[in-house]
Amino acid sequence: MKRFLTVAAALGLAACATAPAAPVATAPKTTAEILAASPAADWRTLDLPATLVMTLAGGRTVVIELNTTFAPKTAANILTLARQQYFDGLAVLRVQDNFVTQWGDPDGETDHPKPLGAAAARIPAEFSRDRAAGPFVKLPDGDGFAPEVGFVGGFPVARDRNAAWLTHCYAMVGAGRNNDPDSGPGSELYVVIGHSPRQLDRNITLVGRVVQGMEHLAALPRGTGPLGFYEQPAQRTAIESLRIASELPSGGAAGRLEALSTTSATFTALIEARRNRRDDWYKVPAGHIDLCSVPLPVRAKP
Amino acid sequence: MKRFLTVAAALGLAACATAPAAPVATAPKTTAEILAASPAADWRTLDLPATLVMTLAGGRTVVIELNTTFAPKTAANILTLARQQYFDGLAVLRVQDNFVTQWGDPDGETDHPKPLGAAAARIPAEFSRDRAAGPFVKLPDGDGFAPEVGFVGGFPVARDRNAAWLTHCYAMVGAGRNNDPDSGPGSELYVVIGHSPRQLDRNITLVGRVVQGMEHLAALPRGTGPLGFYEQPAQRTAIESLRIASELPSGGAAGRLEALSTTSATFTALIEARRNRRDDWYKVPAGHIDLCSVPLPVRAKP
Repeated sequence: MKRFLTVAAALGLAACATAPAAPVATAPKTTAEILAASPAADWRTLDLPATLVMTLAGGRTVVIELNTTFAPKTAANILTLARQQYFDGLAVLRVQDNFVTQWGDPDGETDHPKPLGAAAARIPAEFSRDRAAGPFVKLPDGDGFAPEVGFVGGFPVARDRNAAWLTHCYAMVGAGRNNDPDSGPGSELYVVIGHSPRQLDRNITLVGRVVQGMEHLAALPRGTGPLGFYEQPAQRTAIESLRIASELPSGGAAGRLEALSTTSATFTALIEARRNRRDDWYKVPAGHIDLCSVPLPVRAKP
Repeated sequence: MKRFLTVAAALGLAACATAPAAPVATAPKTTAEILAASPAADWRTLDLPATLVMTLAGGRTVVIELNTTFAPKTAANILTLARQQYFDGLAVLRVQDNFVTQWGDPDGETDHPKPLGAAAARIPAEFSRDRAAGPFVKLPDGDGFAPEVGFVGGFPVARDRNAAWLTHCYAMVGAGRNNDPDSGPGSELYVVIGHSPRQLDRNITLVGRVVQGMEHLAALPRGTGPLGFYEQPAQRTAIESLRIASELPSGGAAGRLEALSTTSATFTALIEARRNRRDDWYKVPAGHIDLCSVPLPVRAKP
């Protein structure tokens, strides 16, 4: 009597480390089979000097890979903050259902905010950049928000004739800002926890992606105040520490992970398998996939 | 220092009851302003004989409006189950991050499943229906999964030349099934809690939408077993009761709600305001909206 939505479940791979599936004799066709058949060379280690390991109260670990290609100044500022242990003792301030979880300084709006030290209080907006951002792996399907979409260096990207920009898919991390475009120095960060709010693209600086531990940010109690802010300090989840992976022994939790290269043949095969599901459960393959439904697999190193 | 993503936050309206905002003197342009300026006639009561009030452990209330236009047989079977108090004492069995929360009979796979009583164990698939499903309010923007998308009777709908079907947006509720198309009688239900898994459209019967209490289903701890199933019975969230709203005094929690009519001028204005955000925060209006980003406002009756 138990009903599974069997194969669709593999969607959950997008932001989770996954155990390798058993090898199969037939040609790979499902996500698990394709990943199991992938050569080791199709996987890459994380960019540890630009990867954050955040530990929430209770020891819950979140790994965030920053993107120094699309948001070099914001990423550098966040790394400066992390090096100063700025985030240690701060907290998750806001969880708005079907939108974002946001963390930073609870005293940020008071007259005694936590000092930013050597980090800048203002960083120029990095909402988009020129198209020469690296090898662009174009998704075969169209997108209503941009002329073309695809992947650069493991991140979802949209482009028009002049520019390229990161997109607000599930698990993407951005730097909260006020009305001024340069008011988001990375001291307050948010992550997408619901349906992709693509209208934010090119309006705020995206700076990274949660590659492990999304469940610790997505399953937090929703705030009941305006915009999902918690109304009582006791409702907040404390940040025990936030460290740069390369400064932890063996990279900490981040050192044990590897990500599927988005320029690999395995990734191309994965996209095609997700566009047209070929298993007994699916009756009407979509023949299409949207940018934010493409999984970006991360797994424990074999 | 606190950074808000100010206006984008109104997205959270989609599945939450909202307090009316204060009237404004200027022409309405934001979601809150448009809703505040809406005439009472643009709102409808819920279809109480087809609305479920589910109470989870701890008194958390979830209101689900079923869709008897697109899934009449499945909805009727669920109502039969509810009338028999079938769901009382069952539990949330599965929470898979960025995918679904699913509830039903923990003993469903054993040799002693809870009897379905007068309800059927098999229901013909209701994956799509003919186009004559009611007034179709077409979204001006395209969609990669279907020739046209829009709304019928408060629900997101896609159409091609012959058929119309409900779509897997956040908060949509479906009837889990096994490989056989008729194996989803509604005794095990799921709700979308992440980025819209549109590839499921036309592959499984969608039967309703959570109109209040999504946060109680979306913020549950993720299951650590395969497909996000809980590995220990103690991890499950119990269902205290599931009742038909029209059989509760004044409709229970559902009787206090009203939904914005998707055929109203207010809804049309809302779509346009979301396609092109007109406030100080947004710098690059998208000029586009995707089906699952359109809010379907529900509020407490004034």
